[in-house]
Amino acid sequence: MQKPPVAERLADIVGEKHVLSRQSELLVYNSDGLPGYRRQPRLAVFPGTREETIKVVRVLAADGLPFVPRGAGTGLSGGALADDVVLLGLHRLKKIISLDVANMRATVEPGVVNLRLNRHVAPHGLLYAPDPSSEAACTIGGNVAENAGGPHCLKYGVTLNHVLAITALLPDGEVVELGSATGERDGYDLRGAFIGSEGCFGVALDVTVKLTPRPETVRTLLADFMSVDEAARVTSAVIASGIVPAALEFMDGPTIRVVEDSVYAAGYPRDAEAILLIELDGLRAGVDADLETVRAICLGGGARAVKVAKDDAERMKLWQGRKKAFGAMGRLAPHLIVQDAVIPRTQLPAILKRIHAISEKYGVVVCNVFHAGDGNLHPNIAYSADDPAESERVHKAMTEIMTACIEVGGSITGEHGVGLDKMGYMESIFTANSLNAMCELRGAFDPDRRSNPGKVVPIHSCREWHGVASARAPRPLSAEPSHPAVA
Amino acid sequence: MQKPPVAERLADIVGEKHVLSRQSELLVYNSDGLPGYRRQPRLAVFPGTREETIKVVRVLAADGLPFVPRGAGTGLSGGALADDVVLLGLHRLKKIISLDVANMRATVEPGVVNLRLNRHVAPHGLLYAPDPSSEAACTIGGNVAENAGGPHCLKYGVTLNHVLAITALLPDGEVVELGSATGERDGYDLRGAFIGSEGCFGVALDVTVKLTPRPETVRTLLADFMSVDEAARVTSAVIASGIVPAALEFMDGPTIRVVEDSVYAAGYPRDAEAILLIELDGLRAGVDADLETVRAICLGGGARAVKVAKDDAERMKLWQGRKKAFGAMGRLAPHLIVQDAVIPRTQLPAILKRIHAISEKYGVVVCNVFHAGDGNLHPNIAYSADDPAESERVHKAMTEIMTACIEVGGSITGEHGVGLDKMGYMESIFTANSLNAMCELRGAFDPDRRSNPGKVVPIHSCREWHGVASARAPRPLSAEPSHPAVA
Repeated sequence: MQKPPVAERLADIVGEKHVLSRQSELLVYNSDGLPGYRRQPRLAVFPGTREETIKVVRVLAADGLPFVPRGAGTGLSGGALADDVVLLGLHRLKKIISLDVANMRATVEPGVVNLRLNRHVAPHGLLYAPDPSSEAACTIGGNVAENAGGPHCLKYGVTLNHVLAITALLPDGEVVELGSATGERDGYDLRGAFIGSEGCFGVALDVTVKLTPRPETVRTLLADFMSVDEAARVTSAVIASGIVPAALEFMDGPTIRVVEDSVYAAGYPRDAEAILLIELDGLRAGVDADLETVRAICLGGGARAVKVAKDDAERMKLWQGRKKAFGAMGRLAPHLIVQDAVIPRTQLPAILKRIHAISEKYGVVVCNVFHAGDGNLHPNIAYSADDPAESERVHKAMTEIMTACIEVGGSITGEHGVGLDKMGYMESIFTANSLNAMCELRGAFDPDRRSNPGKVVPIHSCREWHGVASARAPRPLSAEPSHPAVA
Repeated sequence: MQKPPVAERLADIVGEKHVLSRQSELLVYNSDGLPGYRRQPRLAVFPGTREETIKVVRVLAADGLPFVPRGAGTGLSGGALADDVVLLGLHRLKKIISLDVANMRATVEPGVVNLRLNRHVAPHGLLYAPDPSSEAACTIGGNVAENAGGPHCLKYGVTLNHVLAITALLPDGEVVELGSATGERDGYDLRGAFIGSEGCFGVALDVTVKLTPRPETVRTLLADFMSVDEAARVTSAVIASGIVPAALEFMDGPTIRVVEDSVYAAGYPRDAEAILLIELDGLRAGVDADLETVRAICLGGGARAVKVAKDDAERMKLWQGRKKAFGAMGRLAPHLIVQDAVIPRTQLPAILKRIHAISEKYGVVVCNVFHAGDGNLHPNIAYSADDPAESERVHKAMTEIMTACIEVGGSITGEHGVGLDKMGYMESIFTANSLNAMCELRGAFDPDRRSNPGKVVPIHSCREWHGVASARAPRPLSAEPSHPAVA
């Protein structure tokens, strides 16, 4: 008896309305947060439970079919695009499975939205620290895949620091436990390897996260400058003072003005060339002392004014302008190119000058909005992909910016991942040996390269692909230890 | 022409006096910090430079010889013991290669002693946060291998959070770069996988660490209690208050008394049943406020007295008693069994009662000294391995203690690693699938299992060993993406 087509077998598992195969229905899944990339999935499947997810992946494994896991699709590197293969959407897995207030941890399904988790734990005086700007939409599963950051990761650390354990479904359908709920690492750190693997190592069925006590006090300052250089130098001075702000964000003039023109207007000074948004948190006495220190550093470093949000409403408004800045850039042009380089913090003044010179050379407007405290730049250029001449100038400018970042000792992604977008840079920052080691690491989880194929590490970087028998290919084991005599 | 014996070839690389092969010379390398385990290496080799290390490992690879990397040998899980194979000592690689004060990072060779790095960076107002109790002897390479913790990891996080990049020498002699000096994770997190791999994934040739500004103020409190239970409850209350102490350490009566009998006497109250050592750090105003809160919680929770160290000398003395406690236990008996379980913090009062009951049942004295703030227990029993009846009672008691920890949701190692000592527990805390995934992960770095053979994951947990063709064994790649049509 012939097997029924895979769409039918998947529909038997998840129900017919949760399998899409018409091209018109699939259109909505053909890009992520970077509309410049479009790839059409062959079909999409949306399991509703853990058990359905396991069955779906086992059907795909039995047929040798590649698939692309996807959360909310808010990514900014083209990482969740399925190019003519199966898209496995996990947004229906949205149960908060357990909350252990006393031990400050929660276990959630991968489709739980970041902000929803935070609202759920807030009444208990807790928070989940990583706060990507897309927190209102992005999922915990996606955050794990990208090792997501956010403004408050300057003080609190990225997703890797807040995930204790993961139940993972490997691409061959096997279920494994990674890490442990006590946060300790018994044996090799499978958890560490999985976080940030961009969907290439399989799918999280549940994630146990560490929660953090809400600080007693939060104060937010807005410092504005008539020069980008002064704001960059003040950034270094604040960090050098020994204060660890909860967040230290930078927006330049073009970004300020596009935000102020949008519905997210936050009351930023339109004529400034740069603003810093600095947040301090902790116990009241300490925060008050730090606030005065930071204010003095800003004013001493050339700030025109330092404004302190007087209440939570004002604070949220200042943050909304920052968090929605990428969205506001949609006003400038239909497409957006977003970068995510990380540079040594001391290089900030120099690199911002260099970016300005490059933007003048190519006649493009670069909007800089970024996590200054940890040197994680986001230079963005809004443009129309329908204008080939403009596209070419924009891409040349961006390549030159990225090359400049790499030259000063930087790397190509801080929090958005490599995905499709940054694969071309991988060979300029890693040696052939290191890229091959990544191929081998992937092989431990997904030797057939079926989960999110064609992303992160270019396939030609894997020695195996060139027909070179890998020096590190597993050999049969006979006994342990099986060592020749030392002559 | 026949190849000369391996000892000669190694001596040609490192010089004759840096290769030991006489059994009498090798005796000193036959245990680590746990004298209960002894394994005699076949020979030992001590390269003096990075280049020599690479050459040595390539000679071993060419001959298919297993080897055990070793730093200072201060480990507490029998992880650095070479059982009739080559011991590769890295303590001569002790250069501090670079210090970048402005970007707060340093690159060091693996043999650099933890405390030496801290002394080197202190004049610049910086510190390297992970502070194992063996900091005066242990090496950064060993810290990476074990993902070492220490009292101050409660606030600052373990080694994983403080290592930006590693140049690793894989067991086949290939050099790979893991992570990046900006601290960002481009591509899969090879760095995360390597840290804590207990010498099974190869050797670090250099390690780039993140440095932390020294806090403006440090205050240390000693609270003493007439009951273990009260001290355990106060631990939970301090954490629940939202204050994050730099350290929160627990010592019980037997530990207090053995320390006070030793040369490390710290002035702890000999008649107390438990003391808490609580350290607060940060800016002065905040620390002063927290100090009063913590003092009030201790006194409200039953502390007889709370003493605050009045100067640095007094502070160092309080810490010395804690850090040398394991050493002091040598006064009780020649051998020591040390455990390293981690339990959910709320289980602390219950598990301490259980440990007490078990110690009474078997007539053994358990000394508890541990990182209470993060639920990382160290129950220790001093005994004589030469008395078979006593040994049996001690091992039975310890097994029961570990089983109790696992039953309340704990794990078997917080910071000492699995090594030889805890391999027997791996199957009680991980599923067969998870253990096999660890085998596969190891295979990505060391498919021949030549680096630190016979440690961490029992070999029979690897499916390959049973002759089962692994479902995840790499298959040849033809094209990318190489996917069958979706029918």
